[in-house]
Amino acid sequence: MSDKIFVFGHQKPDTDAIASSYGFSYLSNHRPNGALNTEVVALGTPNEETQFVLDYFGVEAPRVVTSAKEEGVDTVILTDHNEFQQSISDIEDVTIFGVVDHHRVANFNTAAPLFMTVEPVGSASSIVYRKFLEAGVELPKEVAGLLLSGLISDTLLLKSPTTHVTDHKVAKELAEIAGVNLEEYGLAMLKAGTNLANKSAEELIDIDAKTFELNGSKVRIAQVNTVDIPEVLERLVDLKAAINAAMQANGYDDFVFMITDIVNSNSEIVEVGSHADKVEAAFHFKLEDGHAFLEGAVSRKKQVVPQLTESFNN
Amino acid sequence: MSDKIFVFGHQKPDTDAIASSYGFSYLSNHRPNGALNTEVVALGTPNEETQFVLDYFGVEAPRVVTSAKEEGVDTVILTDHNEFQQSISDIEDVTIFGVVDHHRVANFNTAAPLFMTVEPVGSASSIVYRKFLEAGVELPKEVAGLLLSGLISDTLLLKSPTTHVTDHKVAKELAEIAGVNLEEYGLAMLKAGTNLANKSAEELIDIDAKTFELNGSKVRIAQVNTVDIPEVLERLVDLKAAINAAMQANGYDDFVFMITDIVNSNSEIVEVGSHADKVEAAFHFKLEDGHAFLEGAVSRKKQVVPQLTESFNN
Repeated sequence: MSDKIFVFGHQKPDTDAIASSYGFSYLSNHRPNGALNTEVVALGTPNEETQFVLDYFGVEAPRVVTSAKEEGVDTVILTDHNEFQQSISDIEDVTIFGVVDHHRVANFNTAAPLFMTVEPVGSASSIVYRKFLEAGVELPKEVAGLLLSGLISDTLLLKSPTTHVTDHKVAKELAEIAGVNLEEYGLAMLKAGTNLANKSAEELIDIDAKTFELNGSKVRIAQVNTVDIPEVLERLVDLKAAINAAMQANGYDDFVFMITDIVNSNSEIVEVGSHADKVEAAFHFKLEDGHAFLEGAVSRKKQVVPQLTESFNN
Repeated sequence: MSDKIFVFGHQKPDTDAIASSYGFSYLSNHRPNGALNTEVVALGTPNEETQFVLDYFGVEAPRVVTSAKEEGVDTVILTDHNEFQQSISDIEDVTIFGVVDHHRVANFNTAAPLFMTVEPVGSASSIVYRKFLEAGVELPKEVAGLLLSGLISDTLLLKSPTTHVTDHKVAKELAEIAGVNLEEYGLAMLKAGTNLANKSAEELIDIDAKTFELNGSKVRIAQVNTVDIPEVLERLVDLKAAINAAMQANGYDDFVFMITDIVNSNSEIVEVGSHADKVEAAFHFKLEDGHAFLEGAVSRKKQVVPQLTESFNN
């Protein structure tokens, strides 16, 4: 085993997963005191939005790995996630050196003390930016661009309720270093991720999907961004077939699919599985044909997962 | 429920548990931006070492609570621990606003994002001190004295392998603010905690004891500091009787009792329970009459828990 440390975001990486890991790896390697030998890797290929970001700032996508040990690495740093089922396949066999995250903490444990920073802010990239300031390490333009993109992506341009009061200043400062206009760049970037027409139903339900254990049930919660919810709902029969196949293949008890309108900040919720009653209770709505409109909901983390967690626990 | 937030360290509080919670509560209430309404409380009364510290710096012991909800509080901040079985009785029913800790992370989960800072440093007090610097909040003399004492206690005056390279500077700066001589004060303080003669066997095994779940087994690991290991071993029959009673009453599978010589930095390990083989394998020694000498071991966290965790997993 080498002394190299892998830095990576969660499976099915989104822009914040790629950006925060890229930025934190750069920072770790450039600390004036105690620089580490890290390599940023990813647990999957970039989605279209992330690819737009990487192309815009001229950064190559991190190489994809599925196991640390197979690569001769036994120490890792996680960004933008902590739950083991969202992490690298051999997470239980490696040493977790650090975590930088902005999610709930669950299904996570270590044998020894570690560096762990969790803050309830809009993106893991926001925390990484603050760590650059604390360490006094200069932030290159392209790293600033990635971190800004991670924040824009996770907060839908600072409109999601997950946006922290401090994120506005972070976005402004990062946009300046990256040399972009926040609003213009942000909208172009988000729209790059909403081109769903050329994707199969199987791909749609897998673009941004995470598995949660809710009171013993294995629940998959996926999300797509769009500018036209009805256009996506036209494909409901195909989507449900793909969801059913994924449930059978992976043993999910429920599959919750959020179709999020990034312009008007609403979502349509599709539920397939054995706990439709729990989903209805969580959101105080009635599913019709397995789906219902959830006004004002854009954040899986803040407006869906906690509500489902509570409902499943009742 | 009020908007008050409880700040507390672990059950069976030691000096770092009391000091870090006291300091972090003070800091939280005095932040120039976003001050909180917190109250420091404790999950038990101070031990003799901690009482020495509180008397020395003229600080009253935090009041003891056993439930947050019963006190009308539903939001908490944990210092110096994160594992639920070491926390307040209704930890699963309250909102965890934040965590400041220097232990492994295990048996911990939240429904929502939070503030969590874990660092592999010598004491939770070290982290709290750094947070004072970051926030730019002036550190009163008595708070500095408590934080210094938390660090001295957990690192046995910076001699334990849990001492982090940054802790020496922290200790020096805190001693200056507190107005004490580090070595003289530190030794006096540690010695105040080694007066075991007037304690019953039941009290000895409970002074600083934590419960761990190791591969499904419930393992109690207790520690006492002394300047004379043989003096403590003279009471072995009584100690084992007390241990057996505690195991029956609480369903522990094993009870590991560390008798630590704070001057020479060694420990005698007493094991009672069904996994003596695992304990022997963990420390590469042979128990005789249920106990064995472990050279150089002073840290439960670094020299006992990880070794037992690995051994129990094999």
